[in-house]
Amino acid sequence: MKVLILGVDGYIGWSLALHLLKRGHEVAGVDNLIRRMRVQDLGSSSLTPIQSWNRRNAYALTKFGPQQWRSKYHIHLGHGPSDVIADVIADFSPDAIVHLAEQPSAAYSMRSAVDAKATQRDNVIGTLDLLWAMKEFAPRAHLIKLGTMGEYGTPSCDIPEGKIPERCLGGKWQDEDLKEHCPMSGLMFPRTAGSFYHISKVHDTHNIEFACRNWGLSSTDIMQGVVFGLNEYENLDEITRFDYDECFGTVLNRFCAQAIINHPLTVYGKGFQTRGYLPLKDSIQCLTIVLENPPGDGEYRTLNQFENIYSVWSLAGMVCLAANELGLYPVVENIPNPRKEMEEHYYNPAHQKLFDMGYKPTTDIKGEIKKLIEQILPYKDNVRRSVIVPKTTWV
Amino acid sequence: MKVLILGVDGYIGWSLALHLLKRGHEVAGVDNLIRRMRVQDLGSSSLTPIQSWNRRNAYALTKFGPQQWRSKYHIHLGHGPSDVIADVIADFSPDAIVHLAEQPSAAYSMRSAVDAKATQRDNVIGTLDLLWAMKEFAPRAHLIKLGTMGEYGTPSCDIPEGKIPERCLGGKWQDEDLKEHCPMSGLMFPRTAGSFYHISKVHDTHNIEFACRNWGLSSTDIMQGVVFGLNEYENLDEITRFDYDECFGTVLNRFCAQAIINHPLTVYGKGFQTRGYLPLKDSIQCLTIVLENPPGDGEYRTLNQFENIYSVWSLAGMVCLAANELGLYPVVENIPNPRKEMEEHYYNPAHQKLFDMGYKPTTDIKGEIKKLIEQILPYKDNVRRSVIVPKTTWV
Repeated sequence: MKVLILGVDGYIGWSLALHLLKRGHEVAGVDNLIRRMRVQDLGSSSLTPIQSWNRRNAYALTKFGPQQWRSKYHIHLGHGPSDVIADVIADFSPDAIVHLAEQPSAAYSMRSAVDAKATQRDNVIGTLDLLWAMKEFAPRAHLIKLGTMGEYGTPSCDIPEGKIPERCLGGKWQDEDLKEHCPMSGLMFPRTAGSFYHISKVHDTHNIEFACRNWGLSSTDIMQGVVFGLNEYENLDEITRFDYDECFGTVLNRFCAQAIINHPLTVYGKGFQTRGYLPLKDSIQCLTIVLENPPGDGEYRTLNQFENIYSVWSLAGMVCLAANELGLYPVVENIPNPRKEMEEHYYNPAHQKLFDMGYKPTTDIKGEIKKLIEQILPYKDNVRRSVIVPKTTWV
Repeated sequence: MKVLILGVDGYIGWSLALHLLKRGHEVAGVDNLIRRMRVQDLGSSSLTPIQSWNRRNAYALTKFGPQQWRSKYHIHLGHGPSDVIADVIADFSPDAIVHLAEQPSAAYSMRSAVDAKATQRDNVIGTLDLLWAMKEFAPRAHLIKLGTMGEYGTPSCDIPEGKIPERCLGGKWQDEDLKEHCPMSGLMFPRTAGSFYHISKVHDTHNIEFACRNWGLSSTDIMQGVVFGLNEYENLDEITRFDYDECFGTVLNRFCAQAIINHPLTVYGKGFQTRGYLPLKDSIQCLTIVLENPPGDGEYRTLNQFENIYSVWSLAGMVCLAANELGLYPVVENIPNPRKEMEEHYYNPAHQKLFDMGYKPTTDIKGEIKKLIEQILPYKDNVRRSVIVPKTTWV
């Protein structure tokens, strides 16, 4: 299968590219390296010693050959003329396009007007560029788009996978005893996102759903939980980036980075915020399943992609336990929540479809956390304390 | 009251500015004149002989004085640095901001990737600019934002005003007999918009709702029906623009322009598409009511703004009847629908809130149509036939 990965130099992108290459797929990669620059601008860098893009490219080329791997494209989606990405698509004729080329940080989007605008411009206008190019040059290709579970927010009812289900009375979607038909059945489940970043993903969802409905494109829109951990790598050319700063470091990765330098694990607010999580290798597994099981022509489908739900306190507890086994004894500290979010709430999102498609989750999350701490421990002297504690506030 | 109007040179903007000035409000106006340019680029122009911006400005200044009217700002919201609109707001300290500075045509947004991107960049990134400037310099001002009834699409259930109501079983929101609590009550009613323009308004809705929820801004988000007709003018300095081309001419205005040149009234597809309509003077009345009755601090409220619902066939019939009384005998012609939309559908949107606030609708729509035809009849030789029939298709 010919897979075009947009954002191939990123945390998920590089891991996915290598995984797909090893499975024998043809992969073309696009990136503008802006993630490297943005992390650098924050005074941080990947904790794992990732290679330069040129070296990554040379490695993939040597290992898989020019028939299987190609990367000659540096494109900033959503900026400049639309025909640049169109040319790439026309040239490569992908069977599937995995769109990871977005600004992925909520905190980054809340720093200033400039950063909020950059986020929505990169993500929303960039996705528009892609959709129009697909319409013209790859109308049968399968678009895999990474959204976020954060699109839904934390409503006081159950969260379905994308659309409002047939029976919804009482908020329990799956209960077969509920025979009442919901008048809104089939409409998009309402989104209540909590940052300009999360909202940019809601915007993408609306644009992509419309492109499928109007033009007959096919897409899998993935509402992904919080990803943590490293990829499976054979050498340093293959290791993916690992961010732990206040913007690009997600909570579990940040806790593990704190644990190895004996920094308190900083719990934002009460710490009963509950979200879905999955290890990076599960994200790669799910994306591969999705790629190899495309939707029908013209279908827009939503998948909620995560393994299990945890509160921030549970995560902190699991990190402490794993750290203790390695002779580390971090403390946990509640700090004022820089975000505006509910700190105690109902949370019951559906996530059945990927299991039905064959997803075998890593159930040993504690083991994964321990492995992660062991993997990053050699780099503990590179952790910069100043970038961990949040400076960006929501209000 | 100090009212800042963004998009003051437009169809609604200029009418509203004069109306508010006559009511004694202080008004500041911002526009970049891009609507004039875009209509010109289509090979069309306003059928009414609107004055240049400099002359409009001079007229308002002479009539109302520099204390009541000011316009020195030419800003392209969403382009360039964010501090330009921030400076205007800091300088004028408005009590209310009416945001009309958006690309308002569905067809325009579907012409090409370039036009779709321009639409969402102008509208979405422009509104972001505004929200951040309000946060900084006018957090207590009332934002009045023009959305569209088209955000909701045409679902097979009743449409509430903004949010999912308490009781929704069976889809009849207002029925007091329905005691069942909807589990999604209070969440945003799902949007299913039908063009990149309409979706840009959905994006705005999400960004504005979040800005109110997160920062405590106050906003009235107006889901407006299709507006037709001219404003109440005393001389040609006051007359507003009137577009009849395939992009910027809304259906009733286009039918009236067709009637005066004996062009068939072109009904798209089956013609049973049903929408809410209101005359321009009612739109101005409603906006004035909204301005003079602001929401509470931190409140985000949605109003559905239209007088009554009609099918395209009903509109064609009313235009024919009115035209006949003036000695004009247009025929009606079904043409292939350039849009992808349902041509026969359920449509029952709520629109009670504005009536509760004192809106007295113009019930004599046939009289309004006749008056409009009489008003534009002197300019019939200026109608350009080539711009009326749709060239832009949805697929």
